[in-house]
Amino acid sequence: MPGHSEPMLSALSTDLYELTMVGGYYVAGLSGHATFDLFVRQLPATRNYLVAAGLEQALDFLESLRFTAEEIAFLRTVPALARLPSAFFDEYLADFRFTGDVSAIDEGTPVFAQEPLMRVTAPLAEAQLVETALIAEVMFPTAVASRASRVVQAAGGRGVMEFGARRAHGIDAGIRAARAAYLAGFDSSSLVEAGRRFGIPLSGTMAHSWVMAFGDEPSAFRAYAEAFGERAVFILDTYDALAAARMIAASGLTPKAVRLDSGDLVATSREVRRIFDDHGLGDTSIVASGDLDELRIAEIVASGAPIDGFGVGTAVSTSSDAPALSGVYKLAEMERNGRLVPAIKTSPGKRTYPGSKQVWRVLSDGVAVEDVLALSDAVPPPGAEPLLKEVMKKGVRLSRPPLTEIRERCRRQVAQLPDDVRRLIDGRNYPVRIRIGS
Amino acid sequence: MPGHSEPMLSALSTDLYELTMVGGYYVAGLSGHATFDLFVRQLPATRNYLVAAGLEQALDFLESLRFTAEEIAFLRTVPALARLPSAFFDEYLADFRFTGDVSAIDEGTPVFAQEPLMRVTAPLAEAQLVETALIAEVMFPTAVASRASRVVQAAGGRGVMEFGARRAHGIDAGIRAARAAYLAGFDSSSLVEAGRRFGIPLSGTMAHSWVMAFGDEPSAFRAYAEAFGERAVFILDTYDALAAARMIAASGLTPKAVRLDSGDLVATSREVRRIFDDHGLGDTSIVASGDLDELRIAEIVASGAPIDGFGVGTAVSTSSDAPALSGVYKLAEMERNGRLVPAIKTSPGKRTYPGSKQVWRVLSDGVAVEDVLALSDAVPPPGAEPLLKEVMKKGVRLSRPPLTEIRERCRRQVAQLPDDVRRLIDGRNYPVRIRIGS
Repeated sequence: MPGHSEPMLSALSTDLYELTMVGGYYVAGLSGHATFDLFVRQLPATRNYLVAAGLEQALDFLESLRFTAEEIAFLRTVPALARLPSAFFDEYLADFRFTGDVSAIDEGTPVFAQEPLMRVTAPLAEAQLVETALIAEVMFPTAVASRASRVVQAAGGRGVMEFGARRAHGIDAGIRAARAAYLAGFDSSSLVEAGRRFGIPLSGTMAHSWVMAFGDEPSAFRAYAEAFGERAVFILDTYDALAAARMIAASGLTPKAVRLDSGDLVATSREVRRIFDDHGLGDTSIVASGDLDELRIAEIVASGAPIDGFGVGTAVSTSSDAPALSGVYKLAEMERNGRLVPAIKTSPGKRTYPGSKQVWRVLSDGVAVEDVLALSDAVPPPGAEPLLKEVMKKGVRLSRPPLTEIRERCRRQVAQLPDDVRRLIDGRNYPVRIRIGS
Repeated sequence: MPGHSEPMLSALSTDLYELTMVGGYYVAGLSGHATFDLFVRQLPATRNYLVAAGLEQALDFLESLRFTAEEIAFLRTVPALARLPSAFFDEYLADFRFTGDVSAIDEGTPVFAQEPLMRVTAPLAEAQLVETALIAEVMFPTAVASRASRVVQAAGGRGVMEFGARRAHGIDAGIRAARAAYLAGFDSSSLVEAGRRFGIPLSGTMAHSWVMAFGDEPSAFRAYAEAFGERAVFILDTYDALAAARMIAASGLTPKAVRLDSGDLVATSREVRRIFDDHGLGDTSIVASGDLDELRIAEIVASGAPIDGFGVGTAVSTSSDAPALSGVYKLAEMERNGRLVPAIKTSPGKRTYPGSKQVWRVLSDGVAVEDVLALSDAVPPPGAEPLLKEVMKKGVRLSRPPLTEIRERCRRQVAQLPDDVRRLIDGRNYPVRIRIGS
């Protein structure tokens, strides 16, 4: 297991308005508890389910949340905070810790609109301050895992490698994306730091520049084979993929695999397969890359093309068809006279359900048939499983499941979804019954 | 000026294949110099120009690039690297530094397809290793700055605030997005860490949860005004925006501004303006937010709605309509017999121009009329300005322009673009003449 040496987010990873509100609550003496729900308002048009992810990073943030002296000194210079009393900075912020309780849906679980992925109960100011970071750190990995799950479905058991670091929104986003793709069923990532940090298997081949640096393919491939032996993977399409395949077949080289990155992948892979099979290279597999997504992969798989694995970049690392989820963090309960009571908001078109909630998944013969969103203290639907589980108590996290366990849970739980919900196009909406008045 | 305490990217911020190639070059003894160009293959359908950004972070990475003992120990465990000799890890990687030369287009400059944003000349392995991080760290900020520039154009001088941290691909992406939006002309960001790190002005108001926590608007607004005085900004649409405006008008409160976050922004702002003007609140401004982008803002501005500023989130922080640029890093020159000579690749449909290049911008009466992409040693077009400038020499960076200077350059240079290129819809393609044979 790799160590958890991930750099922590600073306490300033928040919108200014969270801090003005925290300051305002301090001045107003509003110190009661509150409950917030983190959920997605509606699924993107191209998703029938989401895969929850990012909880580990969110809990890391809550656990490590501290204001350093330097950060407090900076906040004293922010004009919007200038009227707040000195004690707010020197005492309150200096001692600030997250001391709340968190329930959450396990990473790797399919989730739907309106279902709280996290439920945070804490003193109002603590629960408020963390809004920005919790939304960002949960929603992005959830977006990636959700797209990645579709790619895994499309590949139908063929290998899928996450190659998207260069298209991610900075390397840090690439690291988060690699983890999310892996937990959703990808086999590996190309991003080395993701391998170090999370123990994700690493994969990689060679770039066109390797071939260009040597000037010709025979020298380039021979040099690579000398360095990497039976692990060598050659890129075929620097100049002409079929000529390269014929050259390899005639050369006595026995690469583990070759990669096609452009052109007509279906037709070229057939030709390359034929050339290799005719020359005793039946064990050399063919992997494809180049702007692939789940629809293109499904098409390739349906064509019967002899492609053994897919490298997927932008589609996964940016969730390019739905690069942002409508994730919100809404006040559900507020303490009044020592009791948490439902909180209500009624803006046009943006309904929010009040109260502390539980999500129940109803299974029938091992297939998920509906979810029920109900108040936490309501009678559960018969035979249903609760999805929200306590993961942090008074600021102390209760467990840290290994990533391989999360990945296995995801595999199992996505398989429980009805086939027509998992369909890539024109899938059925999965029913979420809301049993809460408003 | 804030300090430069930004956490540095690790040396493992790279795709595995960069490291296998670096190892392979080591084994093969390929130690000559090479030149790589970082450029965008083609503009997204919704962009007529890009705004270069991210150079500072890219140079930070190159300057600080070191493999720690822990990272080297990890790399020894990676199966794909297992055959590489011990000296590669213990000597070569342990001593690895980036010692190359870099030319780049200044941040804040409008750029177009095929134009190198960076040109890296270094020993082949050094130039290769940094590919992944350079693409990711330059392309994402460039995507954001390019979208942000459109939003700034649309707002026509009204204030624009970047509110997108929660929708960014993790908080780190949000920090990079805030910097890119600011340099492209945004007035402020809500992300506190971006303020600390880059000195960006911070803005923020209150969330609906503030109102809900107090239970009613009169108490909520009064408490906020007590804490923040004349800086207070109230959110109007927790329940009913017009009722809230009338309540404020009758209360004697004098907020600096109010924010509308839902509903019909044009109609509501007109009503709110009328109520405020009728009650001596002529100085209270109205800002709007809620899934805004440049087209919606242009529509609002064209309507004449009395909205003084816009908060923009997802559209900017994820560049949602074009969440990835087709940024590539291509070998342009390779050392042969002690001389750098053009490198050529001919994959179908992915033409790359060989040789070391310069980008020239031709101005006429202060308006940019065309760019010329030519070899570095070609005769420049008459009266044209070279855009690629030396920014790093033998691994040492030559300057670090302040962000405010970059922002002012951007303002000036975007204003130099022809009007019809800056148009939000159906803009003209700006001509880039390519004067290089292949």
